[in-house]
Amino acid sequence: MSDVSIDLQSWVCPAPLRDAPNIVMGHGGGGAMSAELIEHLFLPAYGTAADAGLGDAAVIGLGGVRLAFSTDTFVVRPLVFPGGTIGDLAVNGTVNDLAMVGAQPLALSTAFILEEGTALQDIAHVASALGTAALAAGVRLVTGDTKVVDAGHGDGVFINTAGIGVIDDRADIRPQRAVPGDVVIVSGDIGVHGVAVLSCREGLEFATTIASDTAPLHGLVSAMLDTGADLHVLRDPTRGGVAATLNEIATAAGVGVALDERHFPIPGEVRDACGLLGLDPLQVANEGKLLAFVRPADADRVLAAMRAHPLGAHAAVIGHCVPDHPGMVVARTALGGTRVVDLPIGEQLPRIC
Amino acid sequence: MSDVSIDLQSWVCPAPLRDAPNIVMGHGGGGAMSAELIEHLFLPAYGTAADAGLGDAAVIGLGGVRLAFSTDTFVVRPLVFPGGTIGDLAVNGTVNDLAMVGAQPLALSTAFILEEGTALQDIAHVASALGTAALAAGVRLVTGDTKVVDAGHGDGVFINTAGIGVIDDRADIRPQRAVPGDVVIVSGDIGVHGVAVLSCREGLEFATTIASDTAPLHGLVSAMLDTGADLHVLRDPTRGGVAATLNEIATAAGVGVALDERHFPIPGEVRDACGLLGLDPLQVANEGKLLAFVRPADADRVLAAMRAHPLGAHAAVIGHCVPDHPGMVVARTALGGTRVVDLPIGEQLPRIC
Repeated sequence: MSDVSIDLQSWVCPAPLRDAPNIVMGHGGGGAMSAELIEHLFLPAYGTAADAGLGDAAVIGLGGVRLAFSTDTFVVRPLVFPGGTIGDLAVNGTVNDLAMVGAQPLALSTAFILEEGTALQDIAHVASALGTAALAAGVRLVTGDTKVVDAGHGDGVFINTAGIGVIDDRADIRPQRAVPGDVVIVSGDIGVHGVAVLSCREGLEFATTIASDTAPLHGLVSAMLDTGADLHVLRDPTRGGVAATLNEIATAAGVGVALDERHFPIPGEVRDACGLLGLDPLQVANEGKLLAFVRPADADRVLAAMRAHPLGAHAAVIGHCVPDHPGMVVARTALGGTRVVDLPIGEQLPRIC
Repeated sequence: MSDVSIDLQSWVCPAPLRDAPNIVMGHGGGGAMSAELIEHLFLPAYGTAADAGLGDAAVIGLGGVRLAFSTDTFVVRPLVFPGGTIGDLAVNGTVNDLAMVGAQPLALSTAFILEEGTALQDIAHVASALGTAALAAGVRLVTGDTKVVDAGHGDGVFINTAGIGVIDDRADIRPQRAVPGDVVIVSGDIGVHGVAVLSCREGLEFATTIASDTAPLHGLVSAMLDTGADLHVLRDPTRGGVAATLNEIATAAGVGVALDERHFPIPGEVRDACGLLGLDPLQVANEGKLLAFVRPADADRVLAAMRAHPLGAHAAVIGHCVPDHPGMVVARTALGGTRVVDLPIGEQLPRIC
């Protein structure tokens, strides 16, 4: 091992990793434990080979264009859920990572880990959904890989997609650009994907008409850019939900975020299911929604453009950036009080994407 | 599902998939069963969303440059083996996919699937090896993802890497360019990686000094291009070994390949281990070797340039392309006979990469 990497002889699990010597489900939740794993294990291990903050999409200058490059692995269970499958999730998840830096997706790779004994019919089903989602998103499937692992060492199908896209000339979108005064907009109903997947989990089935919101968001982003607005930040609130995403942005930009819970678009069925299960809807995953930070002067026309787009019909202003409490997200509750919206620590809903 | 994808109502597992309704380990072996899975399941499922043949690396024109884009998932067991770990394999595997179309690697994504209960120390070990390998290969780790699956649904660590690179202006390298007369060169000793991994498999341990040949090959390819030779085909013979790779090239180009077994650089220990285990060294995986198809007029200087490079010191001519038996690979044996070198059907060595 080179001197830029972890010294394995002296490496001990650092305290911030919650004193756990082993991986627990919470490390995959997209919250504080996931962040600690990256900060205290992966980044020191990668040393100077790591570039930037290992964000959702990297930006690479190349021959006069800005290329976006991103990867995401999907381990959702079950493979098929109301409104979607692991296949379309694998397309839309990576397309959205690209869209959140202002890129139009160009090409995807697809890499499958198949478990011995999985029915070919089931694989055909999710691969077909993947192909259909790629056509719908206008992205080409250009390269792939397939591995097989022994029964008991996988879970049917895991899919990784990586994607490349070309960033719109008009876009300079990154978490660090959030500034006090920015208006925070969400593109529609939140908590829908997580509740849809949970509703069909073995041992947990409950009746709901909620279907996953999985969708590709680059068309919506284009419509927002077409307004001429200077979009400061875009992020899709997936694992860890709106709570995790807003906390990450607040920390990255060193600003506070003040929300008003009365303005959150949360469907009644999501609210009911979260109440029943003891979940915070702000921590529940979405797969077809985005959060936008824009200047107050741009907010009205961005909101109007979003509402005119099928994927932004329920867009709403949910809060704004403030100079106070940098790195913190607070919300005025429906009862008029104020609460801190924490970064989730571990795993509220395991294997949701 | 759209009409371009598999009609799931009428889809039945096609006969070429060996009449198996379920995934078997052989589908991941890189041989005939892997090819059937792609041809009869993935490509029909993807429909018109699939571009080109889902080869190891896609070539994408972008702003005046030719971009190479590739993905590979690593499920090797054990995670640490003589000469390497899953971490450096994950770097070199994808770097080599890029190098085989003549690209210099630019950036990699890394995506981990971690199994609940895995020791953080073990993850730090392979992540550190990954970082060190990336530095050695001169490639940046620019974006990543981490997922956690429940104990019993993973196997410690799986890693996917996707990579992008810029293709050398001098290169037009693809399997279809093989023509009768081409000289076939291998860059060094074959069968080394597979035997190294097998030697430490639980229940199969045997004493050997063989260490994996895992290495990044883009520097060697540069040295070959520097000769001014027109390289027709390059491929790294990983899963399925030299046998699978040569069969794929023969099929893609519609040429025959005639080998001479007496010229194969096979270390004695590899030969002995293969004899003991009943393996064909031509079907054993390599992770730091390449096969090159070049014009006869270019062969001497390409071979000289390879031998002058540390990763090509044992380079040797092993055969040539012929107009006879298109799509078939035959070898003159050490005893003077001739045998057909088949595309392996299934899995000789499961989870070798």
